[in-house]
Amino acid sequence: MIYAGVDIGGMTIKVGLVNENGKIVLSRAFATEQEKGFKSMVARTAEMVRALLDEANYSLLDLGGIGFGIPGTVDSKKGMIVSAVNIGCKNEKLVEEMAQYFNVPIAVGNDANMAALGEQRFGAGKGHENVVMITLGTGIGGGIIIDGKLYEGNGGAGGEVGHQIIVVDGEQCNCGRRGCWERYASATGLINQTKYAMADNANSLMHKIASENGGVDGKTAFLAKDAGDEAGRNVVEQYLHYLSEGLLNLAYVLHPEMFIIGGGISHEGKNVMDPLREKLNESLQSSGMLPLIEIVQASLGNNAGIIGAAALVM
Amino acid sequence: MIYAGVDIGGMTIKVGLVNENGKIVLSRAFATEQEKGFKSMVARTAEMVRALLDEANYSLLDLGGIGFGIPGTVDSKKGMIVSAVNIGCKNEKLVEEMAQYFNVPIAVGNDANMAALGEQRFGAGKGHENVVMITLGTGIGGGIIIDGKLYEGNGGAGGEVGHQIIVVDGEQCNCGRRGCWERYASATGLINQTKYAMADNANSLMHKIASENGGVDGKTAFLAKDAGDEAGRNVVEQYLHYLSEGLLNLAYVLHPEMFIIGGGISHEGKNVMDPLREKLNESLQSSGMLPLIEIVQASLGNNAGIIGAAALVM
Repeated sequence: MIYAGVDIGGMTIKVGLVNENGKIVLSRAFATEQEKGFKSMVARTAEMVRALLDEANYSLLDLGGIGFGIPGTVDSKKGMIVSAVNIGCKNEKLVEEMAQYFNVPIAVGNDANMAALGEQRFGAGKGHENVVMITLGTGIGGGIIIDGKLYEGNGGAGGEVGHQIIVVDGEQCNCGRRGCWERYASATGLINQTKYAMADNANSLMHKIASENGGVDGKTAFLAKDAGDEAGRNVVEQYLHYLSEGLLNLAYVLHPEMFIIGGGISHEGKNVMDPLREKLNESLQSSGMLPLIEIVQASLGNNAGIIGAAALVM
Repeated sequence: MIYAGVDIGGMTIKVGLVNENGKIVLSRAFATEQEKGFKSMVARTAEMVRALLDEANYSLLDLGGIGFGIPGTVDSKKGMIVSAVNIGCKNEKLVEEMAQYFNVPIAVGNDANMAALGEQRFGAGKGHENVVMITLGTGIGGGIIIDGKLYEGNGGAGGEVGHQIIVVDGEQCNCGRRGCWERYASATGLINQTKYAMADNANSLMHKIASENGGVDGKTAFLAKDAGDEAGRNVVEQYLHYLSEGLLNLAYVLHPEMFIIGGGISHEGKNVMDPLREKLNESLQSSGMLPLIEIVQASLGNNAGIIGAAALVM
């Protein structure tokens, strides 16, 4: 059996054939071209699935199912896209539409959830049934796996971990709340904190590093810290404090076996993972909230979405 | 069939016989007397179960199971009390010990979780499969029901919703963290905020109300507000703000169908429930995080623990 995983983004639609071991056998991407409308997106995806099956020498009888990851709110029970502004979709019956092309199980989920499912089944979380994945990018995405199954909350609206507040009446967030975790602990949050610190510290190495690298990014403060810059070290320490406080909130509420950290910031590796482990487990230990929780770096990278979408129909 | 629910507290052990409709047929309490040790507590509980069965004219064959609620950390899979300081127990094999007296299914859970299960099966949450219960007392307790089943987290350490922080580096909490929700939104938090406001407002009605009622309690500010006192109104508004922000955090992460609010503060009824509903659903609406979430007051009162413990073995 082979499974198709479809990762729909604002710019490209990625389709992959995934085997039962979670390996991508063949994959390809094409332009989303959302202006052509929902039905066209589905028709072109169906065509791509057929083309990949042909190319990899599979027949339709080998196809075990098709899973979709969507950047937005999804009602997976109804097989519907509720709202996904980045691809211009609202209240679209995705599963029904795709079923016109294929007589196999078809399912749909949110893309952050699909990445979490991919990592849990076949990536960094393999062998663990209770896992929370956090993606540190422009915002903070989350995916919750309980007893080996995706937990989506009522109407698919759960798992929005980036919008838990950690500072009452804090910084204004796009969601309307003030003080959301992602304002402080996403890559965007880190970049803002780096800029504030640079404005206050004219002699910091961060200025040199930023100009050499074409501007301030998520690495600026980390590079400065590594070079012995005090202002850079303070930025990193404050950032890791924000990051670990939000993670601890999830630990106290959900207490999973494992946190999987993905997204741009996770590429800092030991620089982020080691202090995060230390802060989290020190707090759990001192408050007696045991067992400790493993923290690991995501391992499937950009393929997690395709693999997770395929896992949804395995 | 009849089921025994046992609610163990620091002062008393309450035992009730509960029928399949979640009604307590007969119940009785006796002194915990923890100084007599764990085995004695279990032996006296077993004796009480037998006595209640006799008195209510049931035979041992009618007994479908026995469930326990424990004020502490419990490993329900292993049937163990991990740590419960209030009853002086650590690493005690409760299920194994009780099985010496009864040849029926025996199970154990945390007492806040048992109350949540009771409310979800037979109380305010009846008919709902995804429910989070919040108990506003000395601290803030929580119980999470997902797909009709208790979610306890790894090793039973989840559901500690009172220790999510809402103010980074805020007030010191007993758990070791700073800024925990329960520092601000428990009855204790409300009383502290009332006292601070009284110190700052010598002319507030809260002084008169407190002295008439034998001291400051969770009602002082509410009574002052109802009588038109501005300082009292400010305390209540700030308190409801803290309360709703933490509740919203749980909404964004878990998005249950319903929140059930229990504990002393919930007895304020409409005074608390109406503004809480308004704040929560206004935020969910404006951020597009739909569907809305019902908020209801707990309905089983002090019996929730016994009924929930019995429900654990139904």
